[in-house]
Amino acid sequence: MLAQRSTIRHNPGVPVHIDSQGATALLAREVAALSLADLPPGVRTAAKLCVLDVLGVAIAGSREPVTEVVRTALAADGTSAGTGDAAILGRPESVRALDAALVNGTAAHALDFDDVAAAMGGHPSAPVLPAALAVAQSRGLSGAALLTAFAAGFEVECRIGAALTGHYERGFHTTATVGTLGAAAAAARLMRLDAEATARALGIAATQAAGLKAMFGTMCKPLHAGRAASAGVLAALLAEQGMTSADEPLTAHQGLAETQADGFDDTFITPFGEPWYVPQALFKMHASCYLTHAPINALLRLREEHPELPEETDTVELRVSAGHLHVCAIPEPRTALEGKFSLRFTAALALAEGTADESRFTTATVTDPRLTALRDRVTVVPDEHLTQWNGTVTVTTSNGATYRGEADTGTPNWVDDPGEQTPGLLAKFHGLTEPHLGEARAKKLSSAVLALDTLEDLTELTTLASPLP
Amino acid sequence: MLAQRSTIRHNPGVPVHIDSQGATALLAREVAALSLADLPPGVRTAAKLCVLDVLGVAIAGSREPVTEVVRTALAADGTSAGTGDAAILGRPESVRALDAALVNGTAAHALDFDDVAAAMGGHPSAPVLPAALAVAQSRGLSGAALLTAFAAGFEVECRIGAALTGHYERGFHTTATVGTLGAAAAAARLMRLDAEATARALGIAATQAAGLKAMFGTMCKPLHAGRAASAGVLAALLAEQGMTSADEPLTAHQGLAETQADGFDDTFITPFGEPWYVPQALFKMHASCYLTHAPINALLRLREEHPELPEETDTVELRVSAGHLHVCAIPEPRTALEGKFSLRFTAALALAEGTADESRFTTATVTDPRLTALRDRVTVVPDEHLTQWNGTVTVTTSNGATYRGEADTGTPNWVDDPGEQTPGLLAKFHGLTEPHLGEARAKKLSSAVLALDTLEDLTELTTLASPLP
Repeated sequence: MLAQRSTIRHNPGVPVHIDSQGATALLAREVAALSLADLPPGVRTAAKLCVLDVLGVAIAGSREPVTEVVRTALAADGTSAGTGDAAILGRPESVRALDAALVNGTAAHALDFDDVAAAMGGHPSAPVLPAALAVAQSRGLSGAALLTAFAAGFEVECRIGAALTGHYERGFHTTATVGTLGAAAAAARLMRLDAEATARALGIAATQAAGLKAMFGTMCKPLHAGRAASAGVLAALLAEQGMTSADEPLTAHQGLAETQADGFDDTFITPFGEPWYVPQALFKMHASCYLTHAPINALLRLREEHPELPEETDTVELRVSAGHLHVCAIPEPRTALEGKFSLRFTAALALAEGTADESRFTTATVTDPRLTALRDRVTVVPDEHLTQWNGTVTVTTSNGATYRGEADTGTPNWVDDPGEQTPGLLAKFHGLTEPHLGEARAKKLSSAVLALDTLEDLTELTTLASPLP
Repeated sequence: MLAQRSTIRHNPGVPVHIDSQGATALLAREVAALSLADLPPGVRTAAKLCVLDVLGVAIAGSREPVTEVVRTALAADGTSAGTGDAAILGRPESVRALDAALVNGTAAHALDFDDVAAAMGGHPSAPVLPAALAVAQSRGLSGAALLTAFAAGFEVECRIGAALTGHYERGFHTTATVGTLGAAAAAARLMRLDAEATARALGIAATQAAGLKAMFGTMCKPLHAGRAASAGVLAALLAEQGMTSADEPLTAHQGLAETQADGFDDTFITPFGEPWYVPQALFKMHASCYLTHAPINALLRLREEHPELPEETDTVELRVSAGHLHVCAIPEPRTALEGKFSLRFTAALALAEGTADESRFTTATVTDPRLTALRDRVTVVPDEHLTQWNGTVTVTTSNGATYRGEADTGTPNWVDDPGEQTPGLLAKFHGLTEPHLGEARAKKLSSAVLALDTLEDLTELTTLASPLP
């Protein structure tokens, strides 16, 4: 589905000029020109599902400690009320767009339950939707404008993320860095900046792009998405007022690629159109690290085919890519968060309970003797033949039978149309938001999102997502 | 004066663990513990001169287009008034500390006329003072607290900047990146964060640190200082509210050094004390690129010794480090800004007028036939024996005499006490601020800065610097 990578490598750290033939200018022209009519039906559907997904996880994430920290820190420095206020999701406050983007972006990534884009190598929607929503709301724009801008940001992110070879591997959190450019693209589109000003916004974003993978496991990881959203909005606001930036900031001498990647593969820098990246979004249907999902999916399928399995299981062997052992192999988790990064626990959970949804990640479940007894019979084996997206499982029962399964999480979960994912994503959305919004309000909100392209203004949507206390 | 560099190099781009033995923790302890009494008299004097210098250039820079862009963009997104307002220098508005730091930090670097620190490899005061002033003012703190925090930020910046080997050479604008950590240190000190919270603030700063040298020559360069100031304030605000970050963000796997430097030389990570870096600040006494200063100084001295020189000059040869040819060798500048980056023009100006102060950089002067005729007789020769701080000049007169001179701009301009620089810096301050503030107000303001350690609150100072319209 993705173009073949023909990486232009250079010696890391050694300044070279990367001849890009106008990558930023090309993307800026595409962003400035994109209209809703340019989005094929499947892309439009997929974009709405991304909005639904990230909105749900952001509302649930709005009460997480990291989100409270960001909200409180901003308030401690003075209010930011004024014309064009933007909602804080899940809360009654409205603030300026820059602040709403920061808080909501953090909330969107607080549970690490938002969507993934393989091309980008990160989480595409958490930086883009909060930026776009804040700008669209504060400027009184339509749902169609929001959806178009969201798609523009998503497409820009995936193209740049794919082009920046070795960026994530070097230690940069792509959701933070490339996310800033995606957020800037979406904000620029909503501000109706022309191609020239949009290119400047991308440059102002590129020089603000930051975020270290060393921060994984701390509150800074979700903060990265908030910072990307807010920095992207700032970039567009500054470009709107006439700020200048360097031409071709991605590929210029001492630009983003040269300083923070192994090279720049401009075969990925294509006009919007096939391949569209929005329909390739990978949604997390389990509330744990994405790398635990392939074994979970394989076990859920075995369980469906053999309902007796949970009772009869003796041992479980998981085979995964070796890199997983550094990310999600906590052998005996003690907290809910540790449980999300435990291949053994999530496998036991999936096999025993038939789900790994957000409600199951509690200290009580993680330390439940029935589950830990099963967990202790799970072994994790690194397998060099597997990619990061694949996993295999072998379940042996007490009466000597053996069941094998495998799963692939690198391709999206639809065949003919992205809309096939709607029921599952609606279930996820309602599971996440009903505890905060109530059933009726959550239902109205999901309906509004699925009709986003027809909403004349966003007041109803943001009011539903930001209930009065 | 600086410790010998014994760089720990690693293969750029290849992740390695850098064993730092707690660099961030050490600096955080120093910041949290620093009090005014710890600053020797010379350091205290030097810190006040840095504040005087950066305040002067920021007030003059407050009317520059880039500063207006930032101020207007923030206002377009809604006001940010509230408790604890902080002044915008040179303007009547007060805003939240985060915004004041962004606007004033940009203003401080808008003219590229603020101080330089060789150890840091950048401009130390432009990110730190605006952050510290905004926090101190918004929290009603004293001049002594401000001065202490400023020194803490400056010392942190120089130590980290010196330790991050190859950072600037890779294309990172140290004023932006390391500046974020300096601003965070100063803000943390003013918030009275303990060592543990200060370390978290430095981590939150490190993961926001960004700024590309590709942006030099655009408005993003001064924006970098503003972003560093504001991101540093945000880091401290978030740490104050309990945000977590990674231990040892500078040297952790996939931390700042590993992703953005050749190595980390922790011989520079020392407790505060000798060497103090604040007295090593290099002040720009001419309003042009710092790399033009050595030839200017050499010519000014020759002119003083031989008052007849300007009339009798036939040719001038400048010898400079080869790198200068890529930075400040515009042969025939046409605008004031181009004039600042022209070795030939600045040499002609110094020789003909005996000064290169801000008032001389106008389109009229740059294109004045009398000066361009002299400029056209200046040649620039790269010399591999010279460092970036040194320059030599040879003036040949029409009657065949030859005069040689040289200058070094890498060491500060004092012998026994940093206070020797006071008259020159007062003249610079008044030249920059009187057009904006008037003579009486500027005089009161410079007196207030030179008594900063005795000011019980900063209201008078900020009121003087932020006149009503």
